Amino acid sequence: MAKVVPKKIYSHRNRYFCRVFDLISKANEQDMKKILVLGAGRSSAHVIRYLLENSEGRWEVWVADVEKSASESKIYNHEYGKAFALDSHNEELRRELISKSDIVISMLPASMHPLIATDCVILKKHLITPSYVSDEMWQLDQAAKEAGVLLLNEMGVDPGIDHMSAKKILDEIHKKGAKLLSFESYTGGLIAPESDNNPWNYKVTWNPRNVVLAGYGGTARYQKDGSPRYIPYHRLFKEVERIQLEGFGGFDGYVNRDSLKYKKIYNLEEIPTLLRGTLRREGFCEAWDALVQMGLTDDSFSLENPSSMTWSRLTSSFLDLNSQESLPEVCARKLQLSAEVVEKLDWLGIFDDLPLGIEQGSPAVALQKLIEQKWKLDEGDKDMIVMWHRFRYQTTTGQTKELTSAMVCLGEDEVYTAMSKTVGLPIAIAAKLILLGQLILKGVQLPLLPEIYEPVLEELAKFDIVFDDKESNL
Amino acid sequence: MAKVVPKKIYSHRNRYFCRVFDLISKANEQDMKKILVLGAGRSSAHVIRYLLENSEGRWEVWVADVEKSASESKIYNHEYGKAFALDSHNEELRRELISKSDIVISMLPASMHPLIATDCVILKKHLITPSYVSDEMWQLDQAAKEAGVLLLNEMGVDPGIDHMSAKKILDEIHKKGAKLLSFESYTGGLIAPESDNNPWNYKVTWNPRNVVLAGYGGTARYQKDGSPRYIPYHRLFKEVERIQLEGFGGFDGYVNRDSLKYKKIYNLEEIPTLLRGTLRREGFCEAWDALVQMGLTDDSFSLENPSSMTWSRLTSSFLDLNSQESLPEVCARKLQLSAEVVEKLDWLGIFDDLPLGIEQGSPAVALQKLIEQKWKLDEGDKDMIVMWHRFRYQTTTGQTKELTSAMVCLGEDEVYTAMSKTVGLPIAIAAKLILLGQLILKGVQLPLLPEIYEPVLEELAKFDIVFDDKESNL
Repeated sequence: MAKVVPKKIYSHRNRYFCRVFDLISKANEQDMKKILVLGAGRSSAHVIRYLLENSEGRWEVWVADVEKSASESKIYNHEYGKAFALDSHNEELRRELISKSDIVISMLPASMHPLIATDCVILKKHLITPSYVSDEMWQLDQAAKEAGVLLLNEMGVDPGIDHMSAKKILDEIHKKGAKLLSFESYTGGLIAPESDNNPWNYKVTWNPRNVVLAGYGGTARYQKDGSPRYIPYHRLFKEVERIQLEGFGGFDGYVNRDSLKYKKIYNLEEIPTLLRGTLRREGFCEAWDALVQMGLTDDSFSLENPSSMTWSRLTSSFLDLNSQESLPEVCARKLQLSAEVVEKLDWLGIFDDLPLGIEQGSPAVALQKLIEQKWKLDEGDKDMIVMWHRFRYQTTTGQTKELTSAMVCLGEDEVYTAMSKTVGLPIAIAAKLILLGQLILKGVQLPLLPEIYEPVLEELAKFDIVFDDKESNL
Repeated sequence: MAKVVPKKIYSHRNRYFCRVFDLISKANEQDMKKILVLGAGRSSAHVIRYLLENSEGRWEVWVADVEKSASESKIYNHEYGKAFALDSHNEELRRELISKSDIVISMLPASMHPLIATDCVILKKHLITPSYVSDEMWQLDQAAKEAGVLLLNEMGVDPGIDHMSAKKILDEIHKKGAKLLSFESYTGGLIAPESDNNPWNYKVTWNPRNVVLAGYGGTARYQKDGSPRYIPYHRLFKEVERIQLEGFGGFDGYVNRDSLKYKKIYNLEEIPTLLRGTLRREGFCEAWDALVQMGLTDDSFSLENPSSMTWSRLTSSFLDLNSQESLPEVCARKLQLSAEVVEKLDWLGIFDDLPLGIEQGSPAVALQKLIEQKWKLDEGDKDMIVMWHRFRYQTTTGQTKELTSAMVCLGEDEVYTAMSKTVGLPIAIAAKLILLGQLILKGVQLPLLPEIYEPVLEELAKFDIVFDDKESNL
């Protein structure tokens, strides 16, 4: 590739820009393919490591983050790695980097993806993201097809590995001519057993705001025996499925917001039962439900003077404390809580005379602050991803069968987490397949086709991301 | 006043405009003051009748509604009444009418008020509305003051009579030098005992969407004993105050969304207990809570194919029906309902195999459709407004006293309802006071000043809108 120096670059003379430009120039001198990874946060660790270790001189991995140190730490001086400082809101520099690369991986916040995808369509570069396909992303489908560009989304763990592992089995059942009766799928980002040392059996291994607001402000929808089923938020953590995983014990599964849309996505319009949910450790949901019942997950109003408020006072505000009883006693009586739940709440600190520690915000904002402290990953802590599918189907001979498929992935440490591994490896593998010409698609895609899920699942197995299937007659 | 015919009027030659213009011209010929009432819906009946009956040739009442027949029916051929057809979104015609009037009363939807208020400031006309002061309305305060224009809001019943009756007592307590300990205020738009013939003891006498979504999607806030108190929506109809009214029996009071803002509005920053709420007949809230617990008031998602759905199927969807029990039995068991509550739900029709009768919408939209049918006012039905305040205070001699103040207003029929009377009369009386030069204020105002509440309450008493006060030692 010839060294291309567009004229307009010279109009920028700030140091920041020149630094980026120097790196681009040097990179251009080596005539290798370029993989551009936008965002070097926690979930990018495995994407980058896989691509560097599999480069074999075939490609360079360019990592661009607003914090250059984050980019640098992720490439750990690897000979095929380049670190860039880039504010992805800077259109000119962003497009400059994209135009110089062969494929783009966006690990930026999901809201940024349509912007990046637009650049990619214009500049004719393939894009991979781990995020749900937004309406804006779908709107780029036709333009991407016309440009011959692949916009591959939902390529992480959930969504991502869930799609691939489920679709593989669904396609096999379909090939046998069997009639599918139900498909349930649960995923959880949890703490590994060896690092599990609090009564909630939970630590924050991903976005803590999403943990606090899980299911908030809506009604979860799924389908059961051919009929829609609705669970309002205030019953979501009461109506849980108990799931046992050999060697890992018990889990609670609660229903995700909208399972019904997967009828169309998975082409399962006729399926009687379809449910997608989230896993927590057994007992978590009953205790979290106490916080929901109290109202502490509310995000609809701003607290008055939260900077001068303590946790015991906030909790009291939701319980109309007005008696000789202690706060935990009132809480237990009013919400009919078990001793175990009260113990979990007590451990979390909601009865403590300690400040909320926020200047402004809703009860949910205060609760997020609390769980970020109490459910913090300690040094050396390992996380764990658990995925569990259950299929029921009727064979051509009329036999009803149940097939469960379970995957457990453990993190290496606080950087190379199971979350980063399961989110990042499918993306990295897909990037490799595309660069090697082994995956040729265009338009907006999810990993639902055999040409995607087969090679990706095969490669994931080499990294111990494997599913344990068990089939039985019903 | 001379007949003014601005040139630009002639540029409009459509029939609609000419009709409006002819009426304006005739009206101008009579040199009387003009009161412009925008909106001739249900709640305008009493405003218009009071102003017509009290005109004595001093003013004309111009009634403008998008439906000319509504305007006409409300002025019942009164010699001082004029009916206009006006789409209030038509800026030119609207401003033309406003410019020709001396005072404007807006009975339009609350969202229209800032637009009308802007016209009034520009054209230097006073404005009265029954609605809460929005932020946009507050922003007009300075401009209104500079223009010498009064924008008098919250001049109906709730808000309106509640402010005036409460502020009168609060000011009296303050004058005695007593220390205020608590102020609670509840209002309800209900059905009169003689027309009360269903197990819910409720019919829809105002906006049915507001009935369905009362409290939805948030947390109610009040203050008790110096501390904030929060009640999330899923506990709102459980934590009710029981109120007895001599001669009228028992009521349930549930807390309104935000009572805390009244600390500032009523200048009660130091008050330990402050609560505003809504009244329903005794037993209503327990049954309504069953609908909330089920999830039937949810407005966050659109039902799939509601046009082919029945009520029994929708109710089942929220209950995971899966047994030998009947739907009411499952409902009673899962939500721990009393036989009385199940009877109310059964009467309402949520267990019936009848279609929802909606083409699209949320469960709340379906529920609204149902209550509009089941809680419909029959011919001759009379409504009832109930207002109840409770004050506690400590006298200068250290005696703690409780003062309750109750008002019950009954409707005449389906047109001259208690709702229309209590919303409309305060507005009409204020308009009269302004036109007679007995109320001189400017800027954005609420009826919190003695110069407003004293003459208005005095006049309201002539229409049997009177408060029954009872004081006792605690």
